[in-house]
Amino acid sequence: MNKRFDNIRVVLVDTSHPGNIGAAARAVKNMGLRRLYLVSPRDFPADRAVWRAANAADVLEQAVVMASLDEAIADCGLVVGTSARGRSIPWPMLNPRECGEKIWREASDHDVALVFGREDRGLTNEELHKCTFHVHIPANPDYSSLNLAAAVQVLTYEVRMAALAEQQEPYQHLNDWDIPPAKVAELELYYQHLEQALVALGFHDPDNPRQTMTRLRRLFNRIRLDTMELSIMRGVLTAIQNNVYRLTGANQRDQDKPRKVD
Amino acid sequence: MNKRFDNIRVVLVDTSHPGNIGAAARAVKNMGLRRLYLVSPRDFPADRAVWRAANAADVLEQAVVMASLDEAIADCGLVVGTSARGRSIPWPMLNPRECGEKIWREASDHDVALVFGREDRGLTNEELHKCTFHVHIPANPDYSSLNLAAAVQVLTYEVRMAALAEQQEPYQHLNDWDIPPAKVAELELYYQHLEQALVALGFHDPDNPRQTMTRLRRLFNRIRLDTMELSIMRGVLTAIQNNVYRLTGANQRDQDKPRKVD
Repeated sequence: MNKRFDNIRVVLVDTSHPGNIGAAARAVKNMGLRRLYLVSPRDFPADRAVWRAANAADVLEQAVVMASLDEAIADCGLVVGTSARGRSIPWPMLNPRECGEKIWREASDHDVALVFGREDRGLTNEELHKCTFHVHIPANPDYSSLNLAAAVQVLTYEVRMAALAEQQEPYQHLNDWDIPPAKVAELELYYQHLEQALVALGFHDPDNPRQTMTRLRRLFNRIRLDTMELSIMRGVLTAIQNNVYRLTGANQRDQDKPRKVD
Repeated sequence: MNKRFDNIRVVLVDTSHPGNIGAAARAVKNMGLRRLYLVSPRDFPADRAVWRAANAADVLEQAVVMASLDEAIADCGLVVGTSARGRSIPWPMLNPRECGEKIWREASDHDVALVFGREDRGLTNEELHKCTFHVHIPANPDYSSLNLAAAVQVLTYEVRMAALAEQQEPYQHLNDWDIPPAKVAELELYYQHLEQALVALGFHDPDNPRQTMTRLRRLFNRIRLDTMELSIMRGVLTAIQNNVYRLTGANQRDQDKPRKVD
């Protein structure tokens, strides 16, 4: 995986603000990439770039500064350029998700460049015509111009998503839970206990149940209680029962005893 | 669609740098959202926020400043908080894509909040426990802390993707082409013309064809020529032929005449 990330370079053309270079370096590293190419940046190196790069100073230090886009992409087998919609000559176009998938797939075979233009004008038509594909972020038509580093963030994010999807990682871990889920039989005992406690409280009348227990059952089923939560809830129910008994006398205890002892 | 975007608010808690507030406002507007809530920002309003917001100054002006997270989310039916992995008590967790889909789906029914924490420490455990779900951007484990506005950009981007996916828009338009594709019969005439021109040039010998024509056919099939490109290519071939005839004499013209005249 690391090797393939090394085959992907982010190329920034004629960047005006060094802060954007720094923020782009941070996005690049956050998304697991490393290689940044700068084509004739207006102000670089610069303190503001270092400050905005935060802990991605290494990406900034290793950035390759070049005089032309041609040099920056010469050894690449796939070049994707960011473009606004509606250029005069349509070019093969990817959406950001397709872009991430294509870049990740092809990076196993050859070097790949993802090219970003100037803050105010993007890439020129001549530069765009050097690209294999164009990619467009389908932003709000009323304000579609993303900040340069924000555009880098979105497109490198989609590369990372493609990489993680291929590895089936880390989503399978994200929903990991620290405590095992309660089993059905344990839940059934809980529902019995719950009903007894509600009867003891005078809240629920088994002879006129309406939908109370059904609704509570649906509620707790939806939550998918884990075993620790279940024992907390059982503890609460026991405390409710003990409180009721203390008020009404211990002989009450026999009346609402569960039929099945758990 | 616009109405639903209005039901989604981005909430920034205890933001230190006004530049991040401005950049977040820009991301919010770029992705078609409008509502920004600021919980006790350290420095706001501020010139730096306005500067970084660029053409999203309206979002910044309409931002709601509040003293507590409780107030900012009180009327919401769904609250998603951004979280690093590995909090002590796991919470129902979404990945960014699921987060975008869930927010978009539920925003048709009630107000939804997407909550972001401090630049340096994120949300506190207490704040996270007020959320219905947590969302985690699966960044590089070696440097997983995104800039605040970059995180806003990624998660609002996924909301927009969910909105566009539902509308089947705009991807169907992205691959629109200005010129109709060439038909098979037109392509076949082109391949005949191409072969004749290559024969005229002495580049191709029909008696010893090797794979030349097959490879050229595969190349042009892959490109999926449009009708204008096809006529350009035909023009080039005619120019090649005319050039060859001029050098070799017009009587050559009869020899490499296509069997089928187009």
